[in-house]
Amino acid sequence: MTVRFGLLGAGRIGKVHAKAVSADANATLVAVADAFPQAADAIASAYGCEVRTIEAIEAAKDIDAVVICTPTDTHADLIERFARAGKAIFCEKPVDLSVERVKACIKVVEETKGKLMVGFNRRFDPHFMAVRSAIDDGRIGDVEMVTITSRDPGAPPVDYIKRSGGIFRDMTIHDFDMARFLLGEEPIAVTATAAVLVDKAIGEAGDYDSVSVILQTKSGKQAIISNSRRATYGYDQRIEVHGSKGMVSAENQRAVSIEVANGEGYTRPPLHDFFMTRYTEAYANEIASFIAAIEKGAKISPSGTDGLAALVLADAAVQSVKEGKLIKIG
Amino acid sequence: MTVRFGLLGAGRIGKVHAKAVSADANATLVAVADAFPQAADAIASAYGCEVRTIEAIEAAKDIDAVVICTPTDTHADLIERFARAGKAIFCEKPVDLSVERVKACIKVVEETKGKLMVGFNRRFDPHFMAVRSAIDDGRIGDVEMVTITSRDPGAPPVDYIKRSGGIFRDMTIHDFDMARFLLGEEPIAVTATAAVLVDKAIGEAGDYDSVSVILQTKSGKQAIISNSRRATYGYDQRIEVHGSKGMVSAENQRAVSIEVANGEGYTRPPLHDFFMTRYTEAYANEIASFIAAIEKGAKISPSGTDGLAALVLADAAVQSVKEGKLIKIG
Amino acid sequence: MTVRFGLLGAGRIGKVHAKAVSADANATLVAVADAFPQAADAIASAYGCEVRTIEAIEAAKDIDAVVICTPTDTHADLIERFARAGKAIFCEKPVDLSVERVKACIKVVEETKGKLMVGFNRRFDPHFMAVRSAIDDGRIGDVEMVTITSRDPGAPPVDYIKRSGGIFRDMTIHDFDMARFLLGEEPIAVTATAAVLVDKAIGEAGDYDSVSVILQTKSGKQAIISNSRRATYGYDQRIEVHGSKGMVSAENQRAVSIEVANGEGYTRPPLHDFFMTRYTEAYANEIASFIAAIEKGAKISPSGTDGLAALVLADAAVQSVKEGKLIKIG
Amino acid sequence: MTVRFGLLGAGRIGKVHAKAVSADANATLVAVADAFPQAADAIASAYGCEVRTIEAIEAAKDIDAVVICTPTDTHADLIERFARAGKAIFCEKPVDLSVERVKACIKVVEETKGKLMVGFNRRFDPHFMAVRSAIDDGRIGDVEMVTITSRDPGAPPVDYIKRSGGIFRDMTIHDFDMARFLLGEEPIAVTATAAVLVDKAIGEAGDYDSVSVILQTKSGKQAIISNSRRATYGYDQRIEVHGSKGMVSAENQRAVSIEVANGEGYTRPPLHDFFMTRYTEAYANEIASFIAAIEKGAKISPSGTDGLAALVLADAAVQSVKEGKLIKIG
Repeated sequence: MTVRFGLLGAGRIGKVHAKAVSADANATLVAVADAFPQAADAIASAYGCEVRTIEAIEAAKDIDAVVICTPTDTHADLIERFARAGKAIFCEKPVDLSVERVKACIKVVEETKGKLMVGFNRRFDPHFMAVRSAIDDGRIGDVEMVTITSRDPGAPPVDYIKRSGGIFRDMTIHDFDMARFLLGEEPIAVTATAAVLVDKAIGEAGDYDSVSVILQTKSGKQAIISNSRRATYGYDQRIEVHGSKGMVSAENQRAVSIEVANGEGYTRPPLHDFFMTRYTEAYANEIASFIAAIEKGAKISPSGTDGLAALVLADAAVQSVKEGKLIKIG
Repeated sequence: MTVRFGLLGAGRIGKVHAKAVSADANATLVAVADAFPQAADAIASAYGCEVRTIEAIEAAKDIDAVVICTPTDTHADLIERFARAGKAIFCEKPVDLSVERVKACIKVVEETKGKLMVGFNRRFDPHFMAVRSAIDDGRIGDVEMVTITSRDPGAPPVDYIKRSGGIFRDMTIHDFDMARFLLGEEPIAVTATAAVLVDKAIGEAGDYDSVSVILQTKSGKQAIISNSRRATYGYDQRIEVHGSKGMVSAENQRAVSIEVANGEGYTRPPLHDFFMTRYTEAYANEIASFIAAIEKGAKISPSGTDGLAALVLADAAVQSVKEGKLIKIG
Repeated sequence: MTVRFGLLGAGRIGKVHAKAVSADANATLVAVADAFPQAADAIASAYGCEVRTIEAIEAAKDIDAVVICTPTDTHADLIERFARAGKAIFCEKPVDLSVERVKACIKVVEETKGKLMVGFNRRFDPHFMAVRSAIDDGRIGDVEMVTITSRDPGAPPVDYIKRSGGIFRDMTIHDFDMARFLLGEEPIAVTATAAVLVDKAIGEAGDYDSVSVILQTKSGKQAIISNSRRATYGYDQRIEVHGSKGMVSAENQRAVSIEVANGEGYTRPPLHDFFMTRYTEAYANEIASFIAAIEKGAKISPSGTDGLAALVLADAAVQSVKEGKLIKIG
Repeated sequence: MTVRFGLLGAGRIGKVHAKAVSADANATLVAVADAFPQAADAIASAYGCEVRTIEAIEAAKDIDAVVICTPTDTHADLIERFARAGKAIFCEKPVDLSVERVKACIKVVEETKGKLMVGFNRRFDPHFMAVRSAIDDGRIGDVEMVTITSRDPGAPPVDYIKRSGGIFRDMTIHDFDMARFLLGEEPIAVTATAAVLVDKAIGEAGDYDSVSVILQTKSGKQAIISNSRRATYGYDQRIEVHGSKGMVSAENQRAVSIEVANGEGYTRPPLHDFFMTRYTEAYANEIASFIAAIEKGAKISPSGTDGLAALVLADAAVQSVKEGKLIKIG
């Protein structure tokens, strides 16, 4: 079986998914829609698919699934529309910045028995998957302490920051999902600390650029998250899981791994400088997992509920910073 | 000039200092005192010094400085006595488990113009010193985020736990001091999370074995501390400092650094399994620093005030766990 | 411009090139030929190209270039035919196992002003390219000593060994080329040592499985090569270049780079277990370089002459082992 | 039992051994002799021993063992004298630069049933000892290929070079011994390549500064040695042993192991810059092994015969370079 795709949104991340769908032997990219005709045309000509309107894709009989890469504020509406249209849905994170809206959207998906996958791409990074496998194989015993370091090479424009929902909902949300993925037990409490150390303009926009978070589960497992909007040495993405029998970690990745030694010391190159090169394999694996789940009628993961859970943690982190206290979940 | 030492307490850590003093070309070990004559005799015969009572050392004209390695509950009294006796004092941490008692003790030291160094040995680890130097040399710009991972190979006996003042005052206190050493700015807020994951008996004794802490300074710098009383792979002691221009880290140390590769993978040996082998050089450097400060009449660091500051953070961490909120300092 | 390809040979390495050509935006795979129709069909259906005979490809007006992946003993003849047919030629190494035959073949290429690239894929590995760039950028000064470690996960079948021309012409030949690539000066002397340590059957077939080679250039630069047909820990591929101002090295690659720590130590997974996964990027870069050279009318490298030079070194190594002496080149 | 030592030679390496003997709980340094009274006095006052003449040490009843650290051309004579005097002898390498002289010297040691240890300190480096243990424990199966990289931070003065016996007898000799230590089987053939790349003055003195050597044993095991008198990044000392079941290696050591990351990359400090700091533990372990062997009446290793074997390999390497061929041993 070949899964036939429509792509909604032909921007930067849309291109990533267009390429992943096209390269996957079990999928075909049938059509693309975008408010900017040029963007849609570029993808259409690169991958040999049609340009259609969203409405046409919604009504199309030759399309089984859609990938939603449109602006965040359209996600929830589009999910509902395409769930009702009976298409399998892959939606870039987040579903929405409002917990209530996300809940309403998930309800529609459930009522329509829809299939919804949320784009937490890092779960599909081969190194992070191997960490998860090491845990599942019992190599480190019971998980006790998770440490996630996630730092961007540089801050996005302040205009982006303003629309982003803030660092916890925009950036840390990936780490909240990763913590849930690794802890294997739901966090019940969140404590967060936040500051503006990188760029005052971010503070003036009401956001933070340097944050630390502790999550705790009912049994006492803890996850620590360290975020910064700055990392001169590249895109810093590390995870470590400490357990009763051992520890497993995934180190940073670099495009080229040479080492030059001289009187100054031994120097390896900086890390990947961008999420797209760092997570190339993750994006491909992610879409492959979505396709495989559709083909086998299997459970889709991460689901809308996973998207919701991460957003609830983000909201709690915001509240924790404001009130200077630990926030209980649920 | 040779600094002439008396050693108070001939137990495990007393032996470490006896060896360090004896091996230092600028110091002599003159006498040792211990409640157990056998322990004192062992050191006396190994290093060619006399066995004396504490009173005799206090009154001795041939002794310039003392190293206090007696049980914790005697530290403050001994510091006061030897400050009044005009001896330079090196005291193992902590000065006392009570903030009030420590303050009173420091007051006596100040009134007598005494010299007091507190045994935060990790500041003298060559790797951690190099981290501090890299910061001082401007190699990472302004410090933003400090990450300290500190895990013991195994939990101490519950009897020890009961007398220890709890994990924050006994174990994390080293990390509080290290955070202060690296942040270069006083923490003004503490948030802590704690659980019993390693040994239920520790919980029954009213303590925790797995804790996570966030410290924050006035300007927003943050330090994260991760502690566990368990680490199957050895004595886990890492620090990382992220700054505006870069990052500096000190990795774990192992006694032997070979690597064996086979079908199972590439394996390096576990870490040091004990603080004494891990921090051998740190203990020697620490005493050398104390001796050098006495010889030069220089400022002694870390001082009683540093011991106090770390204890205040430990108390705040205890309170933060209890009350589920961020605790402000001072 | 799009370069239109014919593929000769649809075996294991043919598939690799079919994929690389198809994925390259500047190339199209037009046709494939293979003695086994099923093999050709498989590629034709996977990449949407035609199945043709070699003769048809030779005569085709819609084909600009060919990739030769047929058995070794057909390479030289095919190169000559397609040079005469005016097609650009990419040929898997070796051109031939006979130096005389290679020379004759190169002569035909030159007479026809043909374009010939030889498949020394490792020159296009991103890590090894970065080593070469570090040298070119003057980061290590003048090259002095090159060290190449190249070990296969396991020995090929003895049937393969018998047809292979022996370890020096089959396996070390890649390292001879790499040494030339890195030394930047032609070797003028070869010394080799060889033994059978892995599999007696290899010795019975007249070949070796464990060899060490030293190359020396006129100015005294040296390259050391260590080869084994066995490596339990995966496909061992390392290079190191020591120069007057420093050293540059490229470490081994693994598919997944996690590390598990426990009482046994710190373990990273074995290396790639196969040249195809290890050199995935190299194969893609190699074909891209061939395509770019055709498009720009640029010089093709590595050329037939490079193939010849490596083969001459291999022959000298064989002779050195037999005669127990250093063999001079040229 | 305490072994009572006389030290012959109070130069740089004499000081190292004086310190090691003094620090060893099972040994006492009784006396020191040196042609320069000031040098002897310095050691006498630092370690509380007497200054005596060589003759007095030879005749002394309160001395059980001597450490010979005098110039190379006096070693053989002193060994013979002290063997006849019934003292256990530790002699810095080499016994002599002449194979014949070494043989004669060993004969005297045997006739007098003397105890002679030769100072191949690297066998006692904890990391290299662990490599040997890994082999002994069967972790890598049968040894197949040994790789030794040994590069000095800088060339010694040409005056030293002239008296040194040449790079193979002065520098590579350590690696010949290490190869024998690791191969577990005697080399029967030597091939060497040598050049002057670092300093023309070394060439004018008739020596080389950059050499590559292959050793081979009867069963086909091979050892590769790479030497340079230059290494901008510090004292480069690595070993790797590849076997039928795996590989074991010991990486370079540095005094401080921090890493600084910034836009230039990830940089660790240079290596130790000197053999004394690099092999501090090795020197202490070496003397401890000598002392233990005396105490237990155990076999001493490495012995004079080991010194001879390494010298024979060095001579063969010299001959191999001159004659451009493989030289067979024995």
